Parts: sequence; structure tokens; C-alpha cells
Amino acid sequence: MPKISNTSENQLIAKLTTGLTTNPGIIVGVGDDCAVIQKDLYYHTLLKTDTVVEHIHFTADADPMRVGWKAAARVISDFAAMGGTPEALLVTIILPPETELKWIEDAYLGLTSAARRFSCSIVGGETSSSPAGSPKIISISGTGNVKHPHLTLRSGGKPGDLLYVTGTLGGSIRGKHLDFTPRIAQSTWLVNHFKPSAMMDLSDGIAKDLPRLSKASGCGFEIYKSKLPLSYHSTPDQALRDGEDYELLFSMPADQQQKLEAEWKAAFPDLQLSQIGKFTPLDQQTQPPLQGGFDHFNKT
Amino acid sequence: MPKISNTSENQLIAKLTTGLTTNPGIIVGVGDDCAVIQKDLYYHTLLKTDTVVEHIHFTADADPMRVGWKAAARVISDFAAMGGTPEALLVTIILPPETELKWIEDAYLGLTSAARRFSCSIVGGETSSSPAGSPKIISISGTGNVKHPHLTLRSGGKPGDLLYVTGTLGGSIRGKHLDFTPRIAQSTWLVNHFKPSAMMDLSDGIAKDLPRLSKASGCGFEIYKSKLPLSYHSTPDQALRDGEDYELLFSMPADQQQKLEAEWKAAFPDLQLSQIGKFTPLDQQTQPPLQGGFDHFNKT
Repeated sequence: MPKISNTSENQLIAKLTTGLTTNPGIIVGVGDDCAVIQKDLYYHTLLKTDTVVEHIHFTADADPMRVGWKAAARVISDFAAMGGTPEALLVTIILPPETELKWIEDAYLGLTSAARRFSCSIVGGETSSSPAGSPKIISISGTGNVKHPHLTLRSGGKPGDLLYVTGTLGGSIRGKHLDFTPRIAQSTWLVNHFKPSAMMDLSDGIAKDLPRLSKASGCGFEIYKSKLPLSYHSTPDQALRDGEDYELLFSMPADQQQKLEAEWKAAFPDLQLSQIGKFTPLDQQTQPPLQGGFDHFNKT
Repeated sequence: MPKISNTSENQLIAKLTTGLTTNPGIIVGVGDDCAVIQKDLYYHTLLKTDTVVEHIHFTADADPMRVGWKAAARVISDFAAMGGTPEALLVTIILPPETELKWIEDAYLGLTSAARRFSCSIVGGETSSSPAGSPKIISISGTGNVKHPHLTLRSGGKPGDLLYVTGTLGGSIRGKHLDFTPRIAQSTWLVNHFKPSAMMDLSDGIAKDLPRLSKASGCGFEIYKSKLPLSYHSTPDQALRDGEDYELLFSMPADQQQKLEAEWKAAFPDLQLSQIGKFTPLDQQTQPPLQGGFDHFNKT
């Protein structure tokens, strides 16, 4: 019998989501950073769920406050990826009986400080026990809002559009993965002043995520390895493959380049914006496929 | 250090949710079957998340199709509890690497058949790995809709209101807990033809859930043990304590009794409706507290 450990995450998701039927109110279902549901004349509702699992997304000795922050911030980062903002969070915590009460209290402090920092509310959730020895799990579901014209999907990129990333990449395991700042401010600024043609947040590394963005946009891509913005002590390979950077990756029509780069510097003097490549026509992709990046199931 | 196994679920939730701040758009936060968010002039959005954990909510040999059904149906049942209907579901599946691919495919069949049966869409989700040997977990988050006048909270009960349950109770472990039918049809009928003063679904057993409903409504209660509708082979004690019945428990002003009972029989000839007690003034509760019911953390 095939096991999930022999299956890549992309394959598994494709297999499971084939043939899902959706109702007319669903604007975007599976396949983007968030699902998008019709709300009213001005806004769409964004929906997202995301989970952190002990030993996979955090170690047993990680500070529970930072684990809580990370759990909420991962979801908030996905709202940024769509051009939206978070509204309400539901918190599911699944813990084995030997968990110390202080652990969950501290995790909640992290969750609530992330919620407060990004002006959203924790409106409910669930606590469930798991068998002794099970990993601790925090799963967050959230709703967000995005103005109709600000909605930015993965699928809008065009050949020739320039590819940008915010911040620096690589080596997130040294700490950033637990206390990164979701790029809500930058996303809000971008969709208000420019119109990125496609956008996502970088959770599994450019090597995994850029091919997803390109595929959704029906484009090929060229990437300039020498232009990757490196985190302190990171190599270009780490910047490509480590994952958990939670920076924005977006494409922008080339005629916006000068204006974007100049105005960005004025708006966010302390956060790098780097052009790392461009979209190409699908049949003119000359680079070999990127290798690596984080796969949840297939670790080979 | 205190462990969560020495803490009751009610105490834990109270501790964690104290002092949560919420935004103006949040109509109901923590403490009801769903959170309620302002949507438009006619509808509110309902939000709910719920999780099933192997060895806790299902056994290792349970049919994965039924596990998938259960995972979705538990959330759908909570929309019924508010007088609403489900719209969109997000599916989070957390699995150890030794899981057979067929297990997750079958679980998805159960999920999608529940979604189809109750006219909602699976719009996204996440798959995550967990360490080898970890329990399988399916966590579902969903949004629903409820018309403003149909919204039914736990908090609206008044002394003298009669307490009703749908269906029969007890012994759910013999199978019903995996393939119960969320009472969407009955809830929709109720809120269109009557106005239950308070409502919830029975997940942890009347012994745990009725005190929650009473407390939210600021009432005491009287329960007629002899009138509990018993599932085949169940005792009154099992009906009180087993949990996982996913029937509706609601209160109704006494002057509606005759009309409700007559019209129910015509609308749902195959589903029992039983008056099992009534709300009393808080200071006139004469019965001793109910014992038992399912507590996720404190198993003593």
C-alpha cells in the first residue's frame, strides 16, 4: 500500500482536491494562499487555516509564546499575500495530557499579542486532548477582508512581469521562523499604490513556492541567484530552499519598476525590496527546475 | 507544575479566553456554538472550528470515510445549533508518515459527501505531517450564514421556557458518533416557524451541555429523567452522559408547546421531539448538579 511519505505535498493536494464542487458564492477555492468568498459590494471574505505541529514546525523546547505568535502570524501572512487584512481568528489547540498548564497559557499570550498587533480578534476555537506522547498542535483558522480591486491572486502574472521579494531570505531556523512579522503593512501599501499582478507569501522556500506562483500564472520564470537578498549568514542555496521566511513574493508589470523601487524606499526604508527575476513565456523557460524547498510529506 | 490533565475543559477555556479583546464587527465571540460576525443587512457570518483526533474521537480501525463524514458533520451541526446553514469548509489533515494514501483518500470521500449533502463547499485547507506514531487528526473550519432574525444563541432562555431535544440519546459509541446527521433541516424549520429562545447541539452529553446552556441563559433547570428519549439499548444515565449525540437541545416559550409539538409531528414524522425539562429561575434550581458528560481534559 502506498504511504503518504512516498507522495509529494503537491501531488497529494492535487489528488484530494480533484472534483471538489463549489457553490456560486465561492470566488476562489483551493489553490491560492486563501479561499475567497463573496461578501458584499465592496469586500470579499478571505478564509485560511494553518497548523503548527511540535517536532515539525517547532521544537519541544521552543518558547510557547513564540509558538503561539508563529501559529497566528502564519495565517495573517496569508491574508497579506492576497492584499487583505485579518478580521477574526479561531484557535484549535490539541495537547497531550502531560502538557503543563503554563505552556498553553504562554502560547495564548503569543496568539493574543499577534492578534492585537494586527487588529484582529480571537473569536473562538477548541481545545482537544490527544493521547499521551502526541505532539502539541496549534491550528488557526481565520477570516479576513479584501477590497474587490485589491484582491491579488497567484494567477495574474504575465510574461515579462518582474519578480520581487520583500526582506531577506534563508536561515529562518535560527529564529525568524518563530517571530517573523507578517507583511500586512507592505501588502496594504502595495495594493493601494500599485497593482501586483500576482502575489504569495514564502512559506516553503522560493524553490518550492516560485514554481507554484508561475504555474498558477501560466508562466515560466527566470531567477537571478546572485540577486537573492540573503539573511545574515545565509547562502543563496539556503535563501532558495530553507523556507519559513514569510516574506512576500510578487510580480509587477515592468513599466512600474522605477516608480515602485523609488516609492518603496521612501515608504519602508528599513525593509529591502529585491527584484530577483522575471516571468517568462511558459515555453521560453530556459533554467532547469529548482530543486529543494520544504515538502510536508516527501522528505527525500 | 499543574498539568492540563488536572484542569477541566470549562476551567481551561475560561482561563484562556479571559480578557480577549474583540473588534466592533464581532457580534458573538467565544462561548457559543459558533462565533458570529457582521456580514450585511440580511445575514450574519458564522464561524466554527472543530477537530477529531485518533484514539480520542475515533479508533484506529474506524472506517476513514465515516471519520471524514464525522469531522465535517460536527462543524455543520454547530451551524444548525445557531439557526444557520454552512457555506464553506477548510480541511486541515495532520498525519504521521506511515499513513496509507488510501486512508486520506477515503477520509476525503467522507468529507466531500458531507459537504455535498449539506450544500457547502470545501474551499481549501492544509495537509501537514506529524512525527511517526502521532495520532491522525482532521480539523475542520467552516463559515456559515444565518439570517439576522434566525440567529439563536445559547443566552436567550428564560425561566419557564420548556427544554426540548431532537432524536434519541445515549450509546452513540455503537456507531452513531461516526455517521450522525446534523440537524440542519430541523433547525431551519424551527427558526422559520418558531423562535427557540436558546439552542445548542449536544456534543458532550446533556449532563455537560445543559448546564452550559442554562448558565449562558442565566437560568436554573429542571430535568425529567424519565422523559429522556433513549437510543436503542441505552439507559437514562447513558442518555445523560455518553455525549456525541449531535442532537439539538433548545428552549421554547411554554405558550408554543401545543403548536410546536403538533406541527413537528407533521414536519418530521420519523424524528422524535421530546420535552425533557424546563428552565427555572436561577435561585430556584432544586435538582443537584448533573454529574458526568465528556470532558476533553479532566477524565476523573
